Amino acid sequence: MNKIYLEDIPLEEARSRFHDAIKEAGLWNILGIERMPLNEKLVGRVLAETIWAKISSPHYHASAMDGFAVLANTTDGALETAPISLKYDAGTVYLDTGDPLPDWADAVIPIENVEGLDSKGRIAENPRKPEVIRIRSAVSPWSHVRVMGEDMVATQLVLPQGHTLRPVDLGAAAGCGFADIDLAREPKVAVIPTGTELVYPGDALRDGDIIEYNSIVLAAQLEEWGGIATRYPNTPDDYGKIKNQVIQAAVDHDLILLVAGSSAGSEDYSAQIVSELGDMLVHGIAVRPGHPVILGMINQDGKKTPIIGVPGYPVSAAITAEIFVEPLLGQWLGRPAVPPQEITAKITRKVNSPAGDDEYLQVAVAYLGEKPLAAPLSRGSGVITSLVRADGLVIIPRGIQGLQAGDEVKVRLYRSQAELMNTIFAIGSHDLTLDLMAQFLSPRKRRLASVNVGSLGGIMALKRGETHLAGSHLLDPETGEYNLAYLKQHIPDKKLRVVTLVGRTQGLFLARGNPKNIQGLADLERPDLSFVNRQHGAGTRLLLDYQLAQLDIQPDQVNGYDHEEYTHLSAAALVASGRADCALGIEAASYALDLDFLPFNNREI
Amino acid sequence: MNKIYLEDIPLEEARSRFHDAIKEAGLWNILGIERMPLNEKLVGRVLAETIWAKISSPHYHASAMDGFAVLANTTDGALETAPISLKYDAGTVYLDTGDPLPDWADAVIPIENVEGLDSKGRIAENPRKPEVIRIRSAVSPWSHVRVMGEDMVATQLVLPQGHTLRPVDLGAAAGCGFADIDLAREPKVAVIPTGTELVYPGDALRDGDIIEYNSIVLAAQLEEWGGIATRYPNTPDDYGKIKNQVIQAAVDHDLILLVAGSSAGSEDYSAQIVSELGDMLVHGIAVRPGHPVILGMINQDGKKTPIIGVPGYPVSAAITAEIFVEPLLGQWLGRPAVPPQEITAKITRKVNSPAGDDEYLQVAVAYLGEKPLAAPLSRGSGVITSLVRADGLVIIPRGIQGLQAGDEVKVRLYRSQAELMNTIFAIGSHDLTLDLMAQFLSPRKRRLASVNVGSLGGIMALKRGETHLAGSHLLDPETGEYNLAYLKQHIPDKKLRVVTLVGRTQGLFLARGNPKNIQGLADLERPDLSFVNRQHGAGTRLLLDYQLAQLDIQPDQVNGYDHEEYTHLSAAALVASGRADCALGIEAASYALDLDFLPFNNREI
Repeated sequence: MNKIYLEDIPLEEARSRFHDAIKEAGLWNILGIERMPLNEKLVGRVLAETIWAKISSPHYHASAMDGFAVLANTTDGALETAPISLKYDAGTVYLDTGDPLPDWADAVIPIENVEGLDSKGRIAENPRKPEVIRIRSAVSPWSHVRVMGEDMVATQLVLPQGHTLRPVDLGAAAGCGFADIDLAREPKVAVIPTGTELVYPGDALRDGDIIEYNSIVLAAQLEEWGGIATRYPNTPDDYGKIKNQVIQAAVDHDLILLVAGSSAGSEDYSAQIVSELGDMLVHGIAVRPGHPVILGMINQDGKKTPIIGVPGYPVSAAITAEIFVEPLLGQWLGRPAVPPQEITAKITRKVNSPAGDDEYLQVAVAYLGEKPLAAPLSRGSGVITSLVRADGLVIIPRGIQGLQAGDEVKVRLYRSQAELMNTIFAIGSHDLTLDLMAQFLSPRKRRLASVNVGSLGGIMALKRGETHLAGSHLLDPETGEYNLAYLKQHIPDKKLRVVTLVGRTQGLFLARGNPKNIQGLADLERPDLSFVNRQHGAGTRLLLDYQLAQLDIQPDQVNGYDHEEYTHLSAAALVASGRADCALGIEAASYALDLDFLPFNNREI
Repeated sequence: MNKIYLEDIPLEEARSRFHDAIKEAGLWNILGIERMPLNEKLVGRVLAETIWAKISSPHYHASAMDGFAVLANTTDGALETAPISLKYDAGTVYLDTGDPLPDWADAVIPIENVEGLDSKGRIAENPRKPEVIRIRSAVSPWSHVRVMGEDMVATQLVLPQGHTLRPVDLGAAAGCGFADIDLAREPKVAVIPTGTELVYPGDALRDGDIIEYNSIVLAAQLEEWGGIATRYPNTPDDYGKIKNQVIQAAVDHDLILLVAGSSAGSEDYSAQIVSELGDMLVHGIAVRPGHPVILGMINQDGKKTPIIGVPGYPVSAAITAEIFVEPLLGQWLGRPAVPPQEITAKITRKVNSPAGDDEYLQVAVAYLGEKPLAAPLSRGSGVITSLVRADGLVIIPRGIQGLQAGDEVKVRLYRSQAELMNTIFAIGSHDLTLDLMAQFLSPRKRRLASVNVGSLGGIMALKRGETHLAGSHLLDPETGEYNLAYLKQHIPDKKLRVVTLVGRTQGLFLARGNPKNIQGLADLERPDLSFVNRQHGAGTRLLLDYQLAQLDIQPDQVNGYDHEEYTHLSAAALVASGRADCALGIEAASYALDLDFLPFNNREI
């Protein structure tokens, strides 16, 4: 109970311990076979048999057109000037497309290529039932005939075992004589979210409550990968209750995902429960995010059931499932692994990574000209938006300290390259208009991927050719003018277009009602006030420095000057939550968080 | 009723007539909104609202680690040699990961970085409830704290309207305060298969029967594209019955697909029914495959319902749905079109295409070195295996006569490039072992794509660098040796590896019991026999020519010498169906089709 440290098992070893135990339990196979009648719901299911054609398709010689069956050699010599006539029901007969060719015939002449005549030599009233047809061009044998087996010949391979069914595959299977097909049984997976702090989406929230959504994300992943998920209700951190859920789940599931409680905290019971009900194989893996993972094998009433203790942080949970659950489901379904779609891209900034861990780094990807760029997203394991915004994944393997800006990396893509070709990178200062622009572009076949690094960071990204556009609001203290001086200084030799996108009012975020009675920047000297600053290079920080200099206030006189936030909204959020008394930022963020706002006189443009 | 010809409307005009009619009917919008509780089944559904964060996540300052809350400045000056001690419940308190930070604290020290002591200065028995903690290193404010809004700040854009939901999106929506979300209503589509000749999969088959599977493929496509399909039973070619089905379907469906009967045959009623129940907008489109398409608008009881007459040939049906149904469903769901994944590839052989039509050509794709190659597959609109085997689609636009071998073409990929990188091209002679090899490779992360062009075709493909391997069995009449002479002649300067893969016995396919009493190749002279040959360049044909020469038989003495088939199986199938009395091929094909077999003495190796 009082264990503090986890192990740090390399991913490969953890994986092989887990797989070895599954093999030993005799579970390293397809789980079973289900015979299903062919229907449209089978798309995505995995074939458990090879489809060898039972019958040929077509299974008879069929007319490929609406027209007249003939014996080809009876048309020999027919010319525009010397037509040949064939008697209906003797030398020819009308066929609709798909009709079987009569035994005596070996070709079809399309109806539009003959003259159908009545007994008096006039155009027949019913072109499909003339007395005679007149032909002005010979046909070769098998013209306009779909010969038996044209599509599939009995016994040929149509679909291999392990194939994941697509719509056309269902047609092919039906066409070569199958009414039912053998499919791999879908693995049943229990997802048990644990934690006393968990609440359901929509529940009233108090500090410390956590909205439980890992089980939704995991269940959705499982169903995408071909499994059937059972979502259990939230189970509080109660040793007995969690243990009971696991015992119950083991009865009729192939795999158990026990979510949260897999670390070594005071209320982390997963490890103990796994040990007690079976074997704990691994506790703690050298992977980021995802470190506190448990791999084990439950043994209850003679039935062995693999169990994974999934970390509670949402990014860790999703990545753990990708690493351990997806391949296991593939194995159980008999589905060959599809190689990931990878590209080589240039990483846009330095990334430190612990040498002992495999790190899974989410990146945004865009093309500037020919070369793809990968911009690292937030690495917080609690930041699910990094997964939402990710275009791909960079794996930084163990033994590598990290990446330097400009390093070439392999990126596993989550989106098609075509989508990434249509992605506009906006690296620079954050503004709410970027969200609105993203929303505007979304139905217009363009994606906006914004990465917030501040105004100066954006200008440097422009300089390095790493972004399509950069939001910037850098005040030149000499001239009082925005941006242009910085562009001239940093990018003197590149053609740029400067667009004045939006005017913004900067000022101080204050708690509703201004309880600390803050009247202006001069108050930042007050020792009873706490402030939140923006990061180095942010236009807002430059503005602050400029204003403080005007007021002759030294940075170290400002309580909280060193606390840096990266966006207007996150700075404002700290004031909203009472963590700080004021912060500098744009008016729109104060509306967003329902704060009071004390604008400067100079409107930033 | 007696109309024979269809129109030939260019695709763009057909599309705009159809879309204009839908717009006029007020149906060019999202069909409706459905509010759904968040759950794992919503993956693939399309958002009908923008998800702006309702709450921040986390919605309070949370400990990011198991550890002790502190006020950072109380740790200032702590050193390895000069530790600072804080009293429990006064200067510090233990927090589990996720616990809210107390109001007085602004940082967390991980439990493994402190010494927890009891009142006597010994290591505390419970490391999480010591009397005092000893700190040997100062911490900065906000260390190991997940500040409010770290993931999402209230009001920020999380997911745009029109976004197709993935598993992580469901988590993000839950995390920012949503319990229910607005989704676009799924379009309801009726699929009505027609034709007196239709039978269900598994039914007993007579000549002329067609196994109906278009409705399964179409329904599966519809569900993949976000629709809900209703499959109607097979409806015979009966004007009244089909009309009744359409009237019924129009009541509660957004779109009707009337399958087959869209041409101008004697039992094609679709056009007449569409005209009678509303407006026929288009009958016949200059697209291959897919020409006999009807686009119309039913108008029943004041409700307008678009209707598409889908051709009955399976390739035409699937392509018609891709061209007209997928974009319409995207429009109705408010889902932006995703640009197709395209590559530029070299076409491996000449393709003639009518200049008046847009042609949709299925191709197999593989990489030989860096450059992708596209090999055209069968163009028969009844050949569903061309869709099953296709790796991509080449659109040959109107106005272009066709393609020359070596032309660069855009290929819309159906598979990821990574899969194609693992594809082995086997262009050349056909053998059943190719099917077995494909089956063997399937679980081994390699795909075998075989294109049958005969032995000599395979050697020429090798010469041009267009295939990884080529099956070949070319007999040199001079030496009686296989293949090597041809390789020396055609590819003198390239290093090749020749692998003897399989020994085969060639001989004559005969109907069961040999009713025509065929005793050997010498009998091919008999006027009462019909023969089926293989194509130019096929090893089997060369063998025949060699043997005929030995016997001093002229080709024009052989009845059916000019009838060419491309595979052993298709030649054998003609004998099996009684279309021919004998054909030359490999023994394995005779087993496959339950034929008698008369082997030559010389075993082909």
